[in-house]
Amino acid sequence: MRFYPKHFLTMQELSGEEIIELLNIADQLKYEKKNGIPHPRLAGKTLGMIFQKSSTRTRISFEVGIYQLGGTALFLSPNDLQIGRGEPLSDTGRCLARYLDGIMIRTYAHEDVERLTEYGIPVVNGLTDYAHPCQVLADLMTIREYKSTLKGLKLTFIGDGNNMANSLITGCLNVGMSISIACPKGYEPHEKVLAYAAGFGDKFTLTDNIQKACEGSDVLVTDVWASMGHEAEAAKRLEAFKGYQINDKTLFYANAEAMVLHCLPAHRGEEITEEVLERHAGMIFDEAENRLHAQKAILIKLMEK
Amino acid sequence: MRFYPKHFLTMQELSGEEIIELLNIADQLKYEKKNGIPHPRLAGKTLGMIFQKSSTRTRISFEVGIYQLGGTALFLSPNDLQIGRGEPLSDTGRCLARYLDGIMIRTYAHEDVERLTEYGIPVVNGLTDYAHPCQVLADLMTIREYKSTLKGLKLTFIGDGNNMANSLITGCLNVGMSISIACPKGYEPHEKVLAYAAGFGDKFTLTDNIQKACEGSDVLVTDVWASMGHEAEAAKRLEAFKGYQINDKTLFYANAEAMVLHCLPAHRGEEITEEVLERHAGMIFDEAENRLHAQKAILIKLMEK
Amino acid sequence: MRFYPKHFLTMQELSGEEIIELLNIADQLKYEKKNGIPHPRLAGKTLGMIFQKSSTRTRISFEVGIYQLGGTALFLSPNDLQIGRGEPLSDTGRCLARYLDGIMIRTYAHEDVERLTEYGIPVVNGLTDYAHPCQVLADLMTIREYKSTLKGLKLTFIGDGNNMANSLITGCLNVGMSISIACPKGYEPHEKVLAYAAGFGDKFTLTDNIQKACEGSDVLVTDVWASMGHEAEAAKRLEAFKGYQINDKTLFYANAEAMVLHCLPAHRGEEITEEVLERHAGMIFDEAENRLHAQKAILIKLMEK
Repeated sequence: MRFYPKHFLTMQELSGEEIIELLNIADQLKYEKKNGIPHPRLAGKTLGMIFQKSSTRTRISFEVGIYQLGGTALFLSPNDLQIGRGEPLSDTGRCLARYLDGIMIRTYAHEDVERLTEYGIPVVNGLTDYAHPCQVLADLMTIREYKSTLKGLKLTFIGDGNNMANSLITGCLNVGMSISIACPKGYEPHEKVLAYAAGFGDKFTLTDNIQKACEGSDVLVTDVWASMGHEAEAAKRLEAFKGYQINDKTLFYANAEAMVLHCLPAHRGEEITEEVLERHAGMIFDEAENRLHAQKAILIKLMEK
Repeated sequence: MRFYPKHFLTMQELSGEEIIELLNIADQLKYEKKNGIPHPRLAGKTLGMIFQKSSTRTRISFEVGIYQLGGTALFLSPNDLQIGRGEPLSDTGRCLARYLDGIMIRTYAHEDVERLTEYGIPVVNGLTDYAHPCQVLADLMTIREYKSTLKGLKLTFIGDGNNMANSLITGCLNVGMSISIACPKGYEPHEKVLAYAAGFGDKFTLTDNIQKACEGSDVLVTDVWASMGHEAEAAKRLEAFKGYQINDKTLFYANAEAMVLHCLPAHRGEEITEEVLERHAGMIFDEAENRLHAQKAILIKLMEK
Repeated sequence: MRFYPKHFLTMQELSGEEIIELLNIADQLKYEKKNGIPHPRLAGKTLGMIFQKSSTRTRISFEVGIYQLGGTALFLSPNDLQIGRGEPLSDTGRCLARYLDGIMIRTYAHEDVERLTEYGIPVVNGLTDYAHPCQVLADLMTIREYKSTLKGLKLTFIGDGNNMANSLITGCLNVGMSISIACPKGYEPHEKVLAYAAGFGDKFTLTDNIQKACEGSDVLVTDVWASMGHEAEAAKRLEAFKGYQINDKTLFYANAEAMVLHCLPAHRGEEITEEVLERHAGMIFDEAENRLHAQKAILIKLMEK
């Protein structure tokens, strides 16, 4: 079963051409925004935003994005929905489909997002335990801005084989990039993603050798060692991830002019040093800003007409 | 004292003509929405929505509705208001009247909603312990869609003599329908409603005999046995309402082609069976959708010009 | 360092001319609103509203205000922001600056608001422990409406030398008014404000003699004895402020036709009597309404073009 282009759930099911098409739309929207050209392409449309984890960037970028497209957002916390009090998802879903033109959901279980697609209303994955495709689309947009191309580049992800790793692997491979994941044993990316990546030969490597992962790399990416929901095992993770850090040494292994990206929030001194983060703050906050433009492209693709 | 058409508090005080006028506006708005015809009749207007009980349908349908009319909604939880910290309602009300063009309130005590009408700003009752007129307006709209008329039809409500029962009784009688309430002793509708209904002769019947209530009926309606706020007495209610269910047997007593409505959320296996609900899901979710159109008609009536 | 006109943090740094300019814009916006003349001067702009203290008037007046100017507001509670989970303000600030066109913040420490100005996005102080300039701008607007002028008038503030007192002192002195503060020992205005006021000679007086403070006064203002955050010391404050009340006696000391203002919420029987408040309710709720118009003027000044 394929969700796209009715829904946007993972990077895996988008072809390279489809990803590039979204990036082209995003670039155009960014240009229009910078030049004060209105683009009310979703005028009159409503986007419900369901948050089961709190969020700065996801919430604000989607809410501002739909507004700039002429529509409006409804911010729905679990407390606002009767889901919280045991209404079956099928009833809530069928009601939402009667009122709204699209749903963005940020939750834990990826299956919940898949099930939300059954009610005839477009669904955007704003983050699950399995995938973070909106962030990765913004990352690819930022890389293309700085490197002019994607094909043939090598990206290295250092740290937890989490939703970011999963979506980076599938997104990078689909646009013709190579990707290397450096993570400690026991924290590998999802097995479905590894099985998919196996079809790309040496374009994908998984290692616990940070130096190897960084050699020849054009982009270094990391994420916090303990994401929301991992608080209980924070101490154990602090130990396991020791050394899985972007710092001057890892940058030395990589290509000169290698980019550094971070989806934020950052824990300085853990997965990245203060100096490296601040030296690359320009592109890291461009990356944050590009969430806005990339997500507007997704909304247009799913909700226009 | 009459609140309508400055405020919309109960079905009781609307004449049959006034209800039909609202339904006509709602039908027109639904037609325009389905055909992409914008209707910014409340452009620039602001609606404050005060929720002392959480809500899916009420919140989303009002927020989307005012937006589609060209206005905007402010979602106010009790925490956001100083009411929470002991400001007299008269001060809050007078301030709200200075900033907003209308108020929708969902609360417990009906008197609180009546008192909010004193400050010169239109008030819509989004649900109280006494009345749920927005839902009943949507119900009447749905019945007219399916049956082409209201006058002369018989509606049966099975279950708790709550706000839904109160508003159905007064609404149905005012538009020329008959209504029969089947409820266990001790859970009868409000005495003020019973006194009002007494003026309609045999158009109104109250019984604990479900078969009798359903005979000759064109529409069966029910609601959860224990609403929000009844959690403490849920076990006692589960016992008292045993058998007060819409199922194939009750449908057998009613007219062929009888409609089934439910304001949702539904507790399958309690007030309605899974099979009956799903077999009538088309009209039940039409009923949910019609909240949107009916409420937009109310907002226009109260807030336009 | 001067924040205005990039930011609006205190009344102190605005010259009399700059305050009058804002009041003129506010008067014009009020006129246009009353006459149904749209003024979408911030069309397409987004205002993030950060609340670390809950609020009726500040929240609603800003949210309605930016909407009437053609823009939209995002209501951000501390829970919504990763600030709550330890993201450095510098990261949150740089992200917000990428998505939003302005920030309104209501918090405790004035330094937090000053630090938010460092990220290239306009910041409006919606209330801090140190200053409440939006309220005082609305107060001056109301006084000018009722008295036709500001210059030469005397205002008396009775009660806690809090953020309201601080902003009234600086605002009144800068527009050429005299101001007298009557407060109990130990509850004086901020020393920076007292140092500033010292430059205005006998235009400013600080006393614990209520009669003296009120003599010759054109406007009496007060505020609750214990603001949000003072709950712990409420009993102690109740004792300290005994007598620091606007009542018929204080009004008798003042000029005939003296105005009474209160920023609300009011604690009747403490800082003001029920009778005096209700007798002046017209102007007190005009004052509340003028929050809307005055803040729209601020937003235009900071965010237009």
